[in-house]
Order: sequence, then structure tokens, then C-alpha cells
Amino acid sequence: MKPANYAAKAILEKYTPSLQGEYSAFAPANIALCKYWGKRDVALNLPVNDSLSVSLKNKGTHTTLKTLPATATDSVILNDLPITPDSPAYQKIVTHIDLFRTVFGPQPFAVKTTNTVPTAAGVASSASGFAALTTALTGIYSLPLTAQELSVLARLGSGSACRSVFNGFVRWYQGSAVDGSDSYAALLPQQWSTLRIGLLTLTHQQKNISSREGMLRTTETSHLYRQWSVQAAEDILQLEQAISQQDFELLGRTAEHNAMSMHATMLSAWPPLCYWISDSIAVLHQVWSLRKEGLDIYVTMDAGPNIKLLFEQQDEKKIRRFFPSAEICCLF
Amino acid sequence: MKPANYAAKAILEKYTPSLQGEYSAFAPANIALCKYWGKRDVALNLPVNDSLSVSLKNKGTHTTLKTLPATATDSVILNDLPITPDSPAYQKIVTHIDLFRTVFGPQPFAVKTTNTVPTAAGVASSASGFAALTTALTGIYSLPLTAQELSVLARLGSGSACRSVFNGFVRWYQGSAVDGSDSYAALLPQQWSTLRIGLLTLTHQQKNISSREGMLRTTETSHLYRQWSVQAAEDILQLEQAISQQDFELLGRTAEHNAMSMHATMLSAWPPLCYWISDSIAVLHQVWSLRKEGLDIYVTMDAGPNIKLLFEQQDEKKIRRFFPSAEICCLF
Repeated sequence: MKPANYAAKAILEKYTPSLQGEYSAFAPANIALCKYWGKRDVALNLPVNDSLSVSLKNKGTHTTLKTLPATATDSVILNDLPITPDSPAYQKIVTHIDLFRTVFGPQPFAVKTTNTVPTAAGVASSASGFAALTTALTGIYSLPLTAQELSVLARLGSGSACRSVFNGFVRWYQGSAVDGSDSYAALLPQQWSTLRIGLLTLTHQQKNISSREGMLRTTETSHLYRQWSVQAAEDILQLEQAISQQDFELLGRTAEHNAMSMHATMLSAWPPLCYWISDSIAVLHQVWSLRKEGLDIYVTMDAGPNIKLLFEQQDEKKIRRFFPSAEICCLF
Repeated sequence: MKPANYAAKAILEKYTPSLQGEYSAFAPANIALCKYWGKRDVALNLPVNDSLSVSLKNKGTHTTLKTLPATATDSVILNDLPITPDSPAYQKIVTHIDLFRTVFGPQPFAVKTTNTVPTAAGVASSASGFAALTTALTGIYSLPLTAQELSVLARLGSGSACRSVFNGFVRWYQGSAVDGSDSYAALLPQQWSTLRIGLLTLTHQQKNISSREGMLRTTETSHLYRQWSVQAAEDILQLEQAISQQDFELLGRTAEHNAMSMHATMLSAWPPLCYWISDSIAVLHQVWSLRKEGLDIYVTMDAGPNIKLLFEQQDEKKIRRFFPSAEICCLF
């Protein structure tokens, strides 16, 4: 049995399932303000640092599970297209469902999953995808899991999925246990109704190096990466302070500094890892120049070329004027 | 008296000057394969790490000094244009000449200095400029300085100028003395006749943040910078090995990794420091894609948007085809 199956079993065997015929769940995408970058355990998706995100409320993944007759094989429809058993996406989904079937016995499912954010274009659809799938599995088996248990199970599918089981501000505690049982995300109590994120999709092209692969290359070859967890630990403290005091400048500055530093660790890997395209640099310079002129705008970027603008409600009109293609998200 | 004047005096007072009427000198620009990035002493331009460069042979700065009558004031012609005493360039030049006049007494000069590389566009004209000025001063005063003394004096004008007093491969030893007397550059014995550098000037615009300011911001605000000197120390060893074995792949890889890591430290500063423009990213992706297809090409970049291609003579035709605007330099 794989390490992830052991970890899931430790949670699931406490419960007695009652299988439903169908269950639907939604999970939001999340944007990390302090990034998850680097694993201390690859099989269990255990991070080297705490991270902190805000969820995108209405943007994420809808997943419906239906039970199939015992002789059927799993079917998966992703964004309205059936995908075949030889595709990596199918295999990842089935492997995740197997975490439950290893404990509760064989049961084929029909999976229908639809992203309302562009797949692999910089808004992590794997996070909302595995969070929605885990929530749907919990629902279809009628398991009264705690939020912490749900978060741990989602993490086994994709690290940052553990943050996507909540809306609002979410902190993922890295934990220290070898089995990952204390590496889970929890909701922060604060809300921030005037906070906005603007999604700037510069390209819909799938990136040719996955985050998973990028993390590995960075941790293995970048000298500068050795300081990453030190910075992340400081950034988490700053972000929590910014959130509790609704200090936007502190939030924006810390999030941008964190994101640029993550990209810096990639650039210092070998071979250099650069998810940016020409337009990414052009937008960054535009943002920095607008900020110099007094506009309260910051950016964050994930392992991709696209840019997320951070600003407050009061500047929404200006942001729409300067970045007409930005998709503006309310978060609370 | 300023620290730089003390440091210069310790060298110059050993000699008896004999003033000539006119003296001309040339110093080459240099491209660092392991970068100078960060000072342990700002007043004396003392670095936190050893660096290693190769000089551009025929590209650099020509400087002619003429003595003027005792009542005259210094005049400076920079790239065929007279510059006024209130300009920063004039003041830096006069301050450097003062290192000699503090020891040898008042003496006005006419300075004519001409760069054969674009000023402040990514090929360090301050390095060749201060190396040529120091060499010309040594000549007009007829001082039989050692190469090490010449290098130290040039360093007081601009850090990397200490490397531009030589052609070929040059290593700048960071040293440990408080007065900087053991922080000098020395020529490596090896030559590499087939090595080429291609200068890709993407913009002639002057950068709006000087290297001096960029270094300071990086050392003061980047967490990742704390690993920089560790990487630089390793890179120096790799480069020396590559040079003595004429191992081009090792040379290119180490130089590119070093340059990208330097830019990574900038990106992780606050506010982020990004000398790149859109075209820089486009060229980087082009280089990486050509390398994937088998072309032996690497890049290095200084504190600016322009790119220097590293390759060998055998690939010159291909490089000319892919990068028709590259100015190709022989180094030996």
C-alpha cells in the first residue's frame, strides 16, 4: 500500500460509510499570498513551509459523483469532454478515489467535473479540483469528517487542494508528523469585504513544466532556495498581521514580495525555470509604474505566466480602465 | 580624508611622479561570468564575493589626459561632448583624479574619454572607463605601479574596473583587509581562442536604477541574497575548472546559472528589482529553446535588460542566422 493510502486509511477507517447514489460539490480556487513552494515529502504532498491563501469564492470546480453498477469501470467527464483511462488526469482522479475504495471496498463511479477557471493557466484548477472531488467523495459516502480531516484528504490529491476546502483566508500548517496528519489547512476568522483580486489571463497555453516538476527542480538545484522557508515564515506573520488589521499596503507588499521571491528561486534553478512570457514583464512594469504614481496595486503570480492583481474596492474603476481584460473577483 | 583617499595614498606615496604633458590609455570592457553583486564596504567598493570575467579586447574606453596650466579647472569631454562640473559623470571622474592629486599636489587636467560600447546599456562602461582613467593617470605621472596596485586604484573608481585593467580571463579576489589592499584582480594564464561573446543590445535606454543602488537594495532587503556568496564561491571553482579544461558546456552553464541567480536576488528584493524588458524574456526563451534543440549557446546578463550570448567559433554562423543583430566579439 502506498504512503497516501496509509494516511487516508488512518482517517477513513474511523467512519462507517453510507453510500448515496449521487453527490455534487463545489470547491473554490485559491490564490496564495504566501506560496506553497517545495515539498519535504513528495508522496504525501508535505510542504517545507506554511502557506496562506484567499479563496476565489465563486470560481473553482463543480464535481458530481454518481455510483455505477459493480461491473462498470470509472468514467470521467472533464470540462464536458469524456477523458480516457490512459490520460494523466483520469489516472490522478481514479488514484484519489482509490484512497476511499481501499478502505470501503470496490465501487465504480461516474465523475463529472467542470472548472470555472482556465485549466493550467495560472489559477490552480488542481487545487479546486481535488478539493471538490474530496468533498464529493465525503458526501457520497456520507462521512461526517472534521474540516481538518477533509483538508488532509484533499492534500493527498494535490498539495494546495487542502486550502481549497474553505472560502476566505486559509492557512496551511506545514506540520511535522511523518505521516502528514498535522499538515492541514484551517480557515482564518477574518473577512475583508473590500479586498479584490483581478485575474489577468495573458495566455491560455498549458505550461510545459508542471508545478510539481518545477518545485522538484528548484529544491534540488537552487542555492537561493535554502532561504525560501525563512522568508515564507516571516511573510506568514506579516500577512496575518495585515489581515487582522486590514492593512492593505502590508498585505499587498508581503504577497508581492513573496511571489517574486518564489519566482526568484525558480530562476536560480538549473536549468533556469521561467514561467514568465514577454507580456508578464510588460504588465509587471506597468503595475510598478502605476504604484509609483500612487495607485495601491500589487501583484501575485503562481507557477505560470498569468498575473493576479491585488487591490481594494475603491480603486476598482481605475483598475478596469488600466486593465480592461482583468476578471475582477470579490472574495467575501 | 575619505577612506578611498587613504587607500590610494598607501599605494601612491611609494612612488615619485614625473608628470608628462599627455597620455592616452585604453581599457577593455569586461563581461563577468561570475558576477560582482553586493558590497561589504561601499566607500571602498569591496565585494562580498570573488568574481571572474573575460575582457572584450577591442571594446572599451579610450581616455586621453592632458595637463592644463595651474590656474585652469578640469575639463571633461565624454563621447565627444563636453560635460559640465555639475554632472555626476564629471564629479566621479574628478573625484578619481583627486586620489592622485591628494598625494602629488594640485594639477588640472583635460580629460577626453570615449566609449566604444553603449553607455549604461548593459556593457559596463564604468568598468572600462575607470580602468582607462587609472591607467592614463599612472602613465601621465610616470608611475611604475605593479598590476595589483593598478587594479586596486581602478577599483576605488568603480568596483568592476579592477578587472578591466587586463585583457583575457580575470579573477577579482574579494580579499579580507579592511583597507581593501588585498581586493584586486589578477589575470588568469589561460587563453581560449574559440570562445565568443555576442552582444545583443535590446535597448539603448539608460537604466533608471544604477547597479550601485540595485546592489544596495538587494543586500538590504532580499532574504535569498544570503545564499548568493555561497553560490558565487562554488561558481568560481567551476569556472576555473571550465577554463583550464576548455570545457565550454561547464563554462556556459555556470555563467548562465550565476547570472540568473544574480537577477533572482534582485527580483527577491523589495521593491522588486527587474532590469528585464519584454524582449529580454523573449530572447531568453529563444535561447533555451535553441539549446534544447542541441545548439551550444548560453547567456549572461548584467544589471540591465541586454543579453550576452556565449558560444564557440564553430557555431558563429548559426548564431548570426538566429540573432542577426548580435555584435560578435572575439576575446583572445
